[in-house]
Amino acid sequence: MTLNECSLILAVMRTKDDEKEEALFEATVKLVNAIGFAASSVSKIAKEANVSAATLYIYHKNKEDLLVSTYLTIKQNISKVLLEDFNPERPIRDILKKAWFNMFRFTTEHSDYFHFAEQFANSPYADLVNQAEVEKYFDPLIQVLRKGIGQKIIKDVSLDILRAFMFYPIVALANSRLCINFEINNDNIETAFRLAWDAIKS
Amino acid sequence: MTLNECSLILAVMRTKDDEKEEALFEATVKLVNAIGFAASSVSKIAKEANVSAATLYIYHKNKEDLLVSTYLTIKQNISKVLLEDFNPERPIRDILKKAWFNMFRFTTEHSDYFHFAEQFANSPYADLVNQAEVEKYFDPLIQVLRKGIGQKIIKDVSLDILRAFMFYPIVALANSRLCINFEINNDNIETAFRLAWDAIKS
Repeated sequence: MTLNECSLILAVMRTKDDEKEEALFEATVKLVNAIGFAASSVSKIAKEANVSAATLYIYHKNKEDLLVSTYLTIKQNISKVLLEDFNPERPIRDILKKAWFNMFRFTTEHSDYFHFAEQFANSPYADLVNQAEVEKYFDPLIQVLRKGIGQKIIKDVSLDILRAFMFYPIVALANSRLCINFEINNDNIETAFRLAWDAIKS
Repeated sequence: MTLNECSLILAVMRTKDDEKEEALFEATVKLVNAIGFAASSVSKIAKEANVSAATLYIYHKNKEDLLVSTYLTIKQNISKVLLEDFNPERPIRDILKKAWFNMFRFTTEHSDYFHFAEQFANSPYADLVNQAEVEKYFDPLIQVLRKGIGQKIIKDVSLDILRAFMFYPIVALANSRLCINFEINNDNIETAFRLAWDAIKS
């Protein structure tokens, strides 16, 4: 076997692995949202993902590990979306507006992720997560908020309060069952951002 | 039997009924939050409430009816709390601040209700609810928001947007797993209200 052939095989193997991991992730979200944490056994999740239980155990040592890993992947995906086209040199309002639109689109497309995350955060599994690690995913945005506070552009209140107003209303507005009269389009998303900005600006 | 004795017996019976209905309500919230909708059978809920399945069927014709009724009771409880000491003659900001504090206290004490309601709103059961009926519970507050818009005190945006900023951040801030650094005390609740008001005011 040449080095090139070997690389190719490794690349194919790697892709397959990624696919299995992705399938396990999606299966966990789908099954937990449908039947809850308690009823979602490792064997049911493996079946839903179309992999053997033995394969599942290559990636995750037990159910707790699989659930925590699913939650962390969701948080990582959210942080990546928030930070798409991130440019710390732009005005603070523009950076946050970009993040707001990114987040709105993602929340609309992936209400299942937010539903899983909400259930997870209300479950005892949440205690297995190192929240400081999760915070790190969002560090560039947290630095923007800190900079805004320093420049007296943003209110000098705790980051928890700023985040509750900058991003939590999106979860309500993007849920068509909660906000039946809110039509999701650019104009309405921009209007809602105006309220988020007025909430946090100095 | 005298009329008084009869009234007394009826009063006792009525109290007992209320207790059973209350027990079924609490058992449904507890079990669904613990094991999910799918695994929460009528017989398990009855057992958790310490009533027979036959008794449960006196109050609710099936599982769907029990779940919808639980959701509506939670929404009714939330509206009652929001409207405690409601006085439409007071300034709009004062009315909303009072509702904000009421809601914060209730959310802190009953995160289980909000967790149930969130799961319910993300489930197919949500389609069984007449949302226009639920809206009616909150009518006095909606009238206050409408009056505020008319007087140009509050932004002329949809009620869904106003509510997403007036009340949804509370669900995040009152959840100590989501907002690990937000200490719940009057000063911090008042600070957070300042952001809610800045969001919605004209």
